[in-house]
Amino acid sequence: MRDLYPTRGSEETIIDRADPVLHGEAAGEHALSGEEAAYFEANGFIIFPGFFSPEEVAAFNDAFEALKQDRTLMDREEYIAEPASNELRSIFSQHLFHPLFDALTRDRRILDKVEQILGSKAYIHHSRINIKPAYKGKSFPWHSDFETWHAEDGLPHCRNVTAWVMLTDNTPFNGPLYLIPGSHKKFVACAGETPEENYKESLRNQRYGVPSLEAIRKLADAAKLAAALGEAGTLVLHDGNVMHGSPDNISPDARTNAFFVYNSVENTPEAPFAASTRRAPFLSLDDYAPL
Amino acid sequence: MRDLYPTRGSEETIIDRADPVLHGEAAGEHALSGEEAAYFEANGFIIFPGFFSPEEVAAFNDAFEALKQDRTLMDREEYIAEPASNELRSIFSQHLFHPLFDALTRDRRILDKVEQILGSKAYIHHSRINIKPAYKGKSFPWHSDFETWHAEDGLPHCRNVTAWVMLTDNTPFNGPLYLIPGSHKKFVACAGETPEENYKESLRNQRYGVPSLEAIRKLADAAKLAAALGEAGTLVLHDGNVMHGSPDNISPDARTNAFFVYNSVENTPEAPFAASTRRAPFLSLDDYAPL
Repeated sequence: MRDLYPTRGSEETIIDRADPVLHGEAAGEHALSGEEAAYFEANGFIIFPGFFSPEEVAAFNDAFEALKQDRTLMDREEYIAEPASNELRSIFSQHLFHPLFDALTRDRRILDKVEQILGSKAYIHHSRINIKPAYKGKSFPWHSDFETWHAEDGLPHCRNVTAWVMLTDNTPFNGPLYLIPGSHKKFVACAGETPEENYKESLRNQRYGVPSLEAIRKLADAAKLAAALGEAGTLVLHDGNVMHGSPDNISPDARTNAFFVYNSVENTPEAPFAASTRRAPFLSLDDYAPL
Repeated sequence: MRDLYPTRGSEETIIDRADPVLHGEAAGEHALSGEEAAYFEANGFIIFPGFFSPEEVAAFNDAFEALKQDRTLMDREEYIAEPASNELRSIFSQHLFHPLFDALTRDRRILDKVEQILGSKAYIHHSRINIKPAYKGKSFPWHSDFETWHAEDGLPHCRNVTAWVMLTDNTPFNGPLYLIPGSHKKFVACAGETPEENYKESLRNQRYGVPSLEAIRKLADAAKLAAALGEAGTLVLHDGNVMHGSPDNISPDARTNAFFVYNSVENTPEAPFAASTRRAPFLSLDDYAPL
């Protein structure tokens, strides 16, 4: 299979995106409007304030609390805690562990938009709830998720979209996600051969698939930066290839978001394009049945 | 001398500020208006967008560039470079090394406001130009400057104000200063005895005089956080005791600010209140002649 996005070579390069951003047409009650679709196509993301009601947000947080307390999960690799405090930092595959998050993956309000963007049915490639703790939450460097999914999981095309729900307010102060609007139309082929079992280190400290300052400057020259801000219950859709990162959180408020990565059922993994083996199954899920 | 702000003991406590915020009355052409003075009194800071003209900002940046290039400064302790790259990160006492910054300390547009706030003539206790580099600029934890000046320099009263000039834009993305409005009316007595020569470590990584998450939460409960944002040429005045910190800078733009700390000539240093010796003279200047 031809590699449309060669990466992890000896030098960083920036190439054009080979795939469309919008693969389909509006269909279904909850599809993006023409204006919304055009905004997503141009910017690589779109923010829907107040998408979920306060009651729905409370239920999501209750479900998350239940996962946090579930002692049967604590020894699983999906459960990532701070080494010192044993405080939960991330939990993966929340939709496999709680019926509410499972149902959310099939919520037509999201799925209509996802299927429109992907131009096909979708499955969940990856999901994660991430807490950036108050006061000491660490920054995350700029990266394209798709670069890793292509290099290390073998997704051939950029035909994936992340839908994420703010479980707490995302403020200018608590380490919000920054995005480079329009960066999804370029692909930064990153320098550096992927080490064995890179994901283990990468979850804590991503070192491969991280563009240089010069690359970020080139992408950001063409666009102002944006921040994904909103109250709990806000929904964000972002293209798999949009460049994003987040600063640390020195504020007194934690920032918690639930991410769901939808991949097209017509874009299931090949062998990894720039790694000797695929990432662990909990990072690259293998249930390709359409939602 | 009675210690109005005992700190660096065994436990963290929060006490009321013992000094007024505004010590004087408006006088001089460039004094704060009644509204501005009330804002400063209530919040502990005030931001003046477009305070300096683009020509003045260009001249400041030229002067800063000259200091960066001045090889006679590079071996001085005022010149702080990144160990790896030897890139300048901070330079102290810029007003002693360049006539433009020296003149700026006596600029009536600033000094009228400073003398009004301090209710007296003023001198420069400390000055610094600080670069937070693009992409990798590190965060700085919450702190009150006055807590250190009291503990380690011996300033008896909170009768000081920092005037600072943005030499580059300070955006939501390049690690801007966050402030807790109203926090200047409380004093967080920090836990932990000051080690010998603490300032050497503290310049890189402040560990003493850093309030806990719980203290920040208490201060921030009473107020939303604020960010000091603005274009190059913006002036900010902040009370010596206002709680502030800054996140890291992952953006492609460096953030550079020039700080000038004015202390009242009626508030010159005593013996340090919570350290065995005063910080090095380049951090705690000893020319008390009124500006």
